[in-house]
Amino acid sequence: MKINEKLSNEIYKNLEKVRNQKPLVHHITNWVTIYDCANVVKIFGASPVMAHAKEEVNDMVNIASSLVLNIGTLTTDIIESMIIAGKRANERNIPVVLDVCGAGATPFRDDMCKKILSNCKIDILKGNSSEIARIAGMNIQTKGVDSSEVNADLSQLSKSLAVKNDCTVVITGKYDIVSDKSRTFIINNGHEMMSRIVGTGCMAASVVGTFAGVSSDKDYAFSSVSGLVCYEIAAEIAANLCQGPGTFKEHLFDAVSNLSNDQIIEMQNAEVK
Amino acid sequence: MKINEKLSNEIYKNLEKVRNQKPLVHHITNWVTIYDCANVVKIFGASPVMAHAKEEVNDMVNIASSLVLNIGTLTTDIIESMIIAGKRANERNIPVVLDVCGAGATPFRDDMCKKILSNCKIDILKGNSSEIARIAGMNIQTKGVDSSEVNADLSQLSKSLAVKNDCTVVITGKYDIVSDKSRTFIINNGHEMMSRIVGTGCMAASVVGTFAGVSSDKDYAFSSVSGLVCYEIAAEIAANLCQGPGTFKEHLFDAVSNLSNDQIIEMQNAEVK
Amino acid sequence: MKINEKLSNEIYKNLEKVRNQKPLVHHITNWVTIYDCANVVKIFGASPVMAHAKEEVNDMVNIASSLVLNIGTLTTDIIESMIIAGKRANERNIPVVLDVCGAGATPFRDDMCKKILSNCKIDILKGNSSEIARIAGMNIQTKGVDSSEVNADLSQLSKSLAVKNDCTVVITGKYDIVSDKSRTFIINNGHEMMSRIVGTGCMAASVVGTFAGVSSDKDYAFSSVSGLVCYEIAAEIAANLCQGPGTFKEHLFDAVSNLSNDQIIEMQNAEVK
Repeated sequence: MKINEKLSNEIYKNLEKVRNQKPLVHHITNWVTIYDCANVVKIFGASPVMAHAKEEVNDMVNIASSLVLNIGTLTTDIIESMIIAGKRANERNIPVVLDVCGAGATPFRDDMCKKILSNCKIDILKGNSSEIARIAGMNIQTKGVDSSEVNADLSQLSKSLAVKNDCTVVITGKYDIVSDKSRTFIINNGHEMMSRIVGTGCMAASVVGTFAGVSSDKDYAFSSVSGLVCYEIAAEIAANLCQGPGTFKEHLFDAVSNLSNDQIIEMQNAEVK
Repeated sequence: MKINEKLSNEIYKNLEKVRNQKPLVHHITNWVTIYDCANVVKIFGASPVMAHAKEEVNDMVNIASSLVLNIGTLTTDIIESMIIAGKRANERNIPVVLDVCGAGATPFRDDMCKKILSNCKIDILKGNSSEIARIAGMNIQTKGVDSSEVNADLSQLSKSLAVKNDCTVVITGKYDIVSDKSRTFIINNGHEMMSRIVGTGCMAASVVGTFAGVSSDKDYAFSSVSGLVCYEIAAEIAANLCQGPGTFKEHLFDAVSNLSNDQIIEMQNAEVK
Repeated sequence: MKINEKLSNEIYKNLEKVRNQKPLVHHITNWVTIYDCANVVKIFGASPVMAHAKEEVNDMVNIASSLVLNIGTLTTDIIESMIIAGKRANERNIPVVLDVCGAGATPFRDDMCKKILSNCKIDILKGNSSEIARIAGMNIQTKGVDSSEVNADLSQLSKSLAVKNDCTVVITGKYDIVSDKSRTFIINNGHEMMSRIVGTGCMAASVVGTFAGVSSDKDYAFSSVSGLVCYEIAAEIAANLCQGPGTFKEHLFDAVSNLSNDQIIEMQNAEVK
């Protein structure tokens, strides 16, 4: 069942909430895509802040609407800051996103994910297919931060992990899967060009965190779908305007900034399974 | 009083000095906008260097023409390096810029600003309005690194802080304010597009540091005005050429690189109060 | 002697190997150009991964095809991780690239280069002319990370350093020099625009590391030449399409992505001395 026009309007309403409420999205993230993560949040109309010092993460969470954790270039110090911030976010009942970037690449990444998950309630667990498969306990090797092939039903995988962890699970890839305990969404928006540059996956987590930050009913599955549909429609628009992956990224930011309700209604391609 | 054509020529002369002398601008900065800060310095024609190891900051300051400190993603280690570098810069009598990025967001940021200010002579203190208001002692909450509304006369604020700290104060925003003990400049150049991407504020501090690095008379208020006018005229040119905030940044760099005396004379819009 | 069409085909074959084998290129690098380094590897068709925690670098090297070390924003911690990773790469017999970024700027950089070189076998030593001159023992001051003039025969310098260290030496600049024990190549491709933005030198090291990762005969001089010729032909194409250094970089990435055998045959301008 394709999400109908009414739901397209709900997606656009969420985009409008981001633009009007301008949530402060606190990140503790990696050093590779930190700029793009901040920039995509800003261009969606919200306020990003990147802060990782143990001495201040509590205070930054105190003024934030959501927290995005990304372990892309993790160290033990950074993980410690993430746990401090995550606990405080839990106390404040603001959403926490964890991008398990590179899970399945090294035992250290797997262990640190477990450590975060056992110390904080993660509201949205996000990764590519092999990262999420690894978190779900499969014996799989992620190729650095790039997904390897997963021989499993990804919808089933995300659904059971969502149930087990009582959270929303987001798997990004050719198509995206968003599951919570009761529903699974498939998002067919997006473009192959996204896989040819660094950072589109990390930005997806930041977008998800931005939309979670304006979710009044704490339906983080639908807020994630809203953010991802907007972001990936922008990617489709950008892919039509660019001459390659270099010019693609600039057009992606332009398209995010200029995204309209009409574009969402015309191009939205998500479904509930 | 609009700065007249003679002063436009002074601004262009400062730009030419940057391009010819190619000052080495040593940064200890944040991990979000570190590339853009380096790149804007390079594209203005100067040499950026980013180095933060305690073991080498003294030696790097020894060959630098100016030092730019930005606390955007501060840690106690980074602040320690900043103070070592700042003291050495003071000994060498080269200008030190401090971008108080996020002051007013957390007590840690406020404390670390105080620590730097009490250990080093800062020649140019730069921030957005709520950051500078916080440094001036107002009870105000900065929204991460984005300014919140300040109920105060900003010119008065910058002026009194300049007098108190015996330095140049730069407040960036819709219009920029540059004060030293005796003068206050208002810069009406720039474009709203600058506020829609991450990094334009940090880059402004790097530009100010670059122009301070070629100031022979240590008139850091006027060198700051020179740099900001050039940078913001480039932003106006870029805003006319772009389709959104993504393409804006690339055109901004192009416009900085191609900036001519004629453009400065035609577009310069600064005034002395 | 210009490398003939047969060798152009060898270069294209190496590009095809990168695109088909998609080597995992593990970087421990600086925080300024880390995104661009990852992105250029990705856009060449390979898989970059940036990981520096002592706890995981061994495991990341275990799944990598090559290792790229860049000391641009070095600390003692990072150097320690580089040495752990370098030793493991040596054990696995995968190529190690060292970009001696900023060698000759501070004694700390020189010392840390020596430390790496005395603890690991470096297969490809890469820098600009004053960085490499410094590593070769000349008394020269690098201007931060920008080269200063070197009064020496650079081909001779690279050759003797290659012999002394039993490695491939790459000097980038107006033209590039690639030497191993038996041969010296001069690459006349590239464009002045590359020197006007930050990061093209660091990306060159990442490209060299990417092509080394698919070298079946461990001829790292020729794999380096292959990568640099491709990268710099792309730069020439981009320079023709851009309006300045800002738009240049996006076109550079596009041109890398779209690079064809015909373009390599038509534009390749390398020679063996």
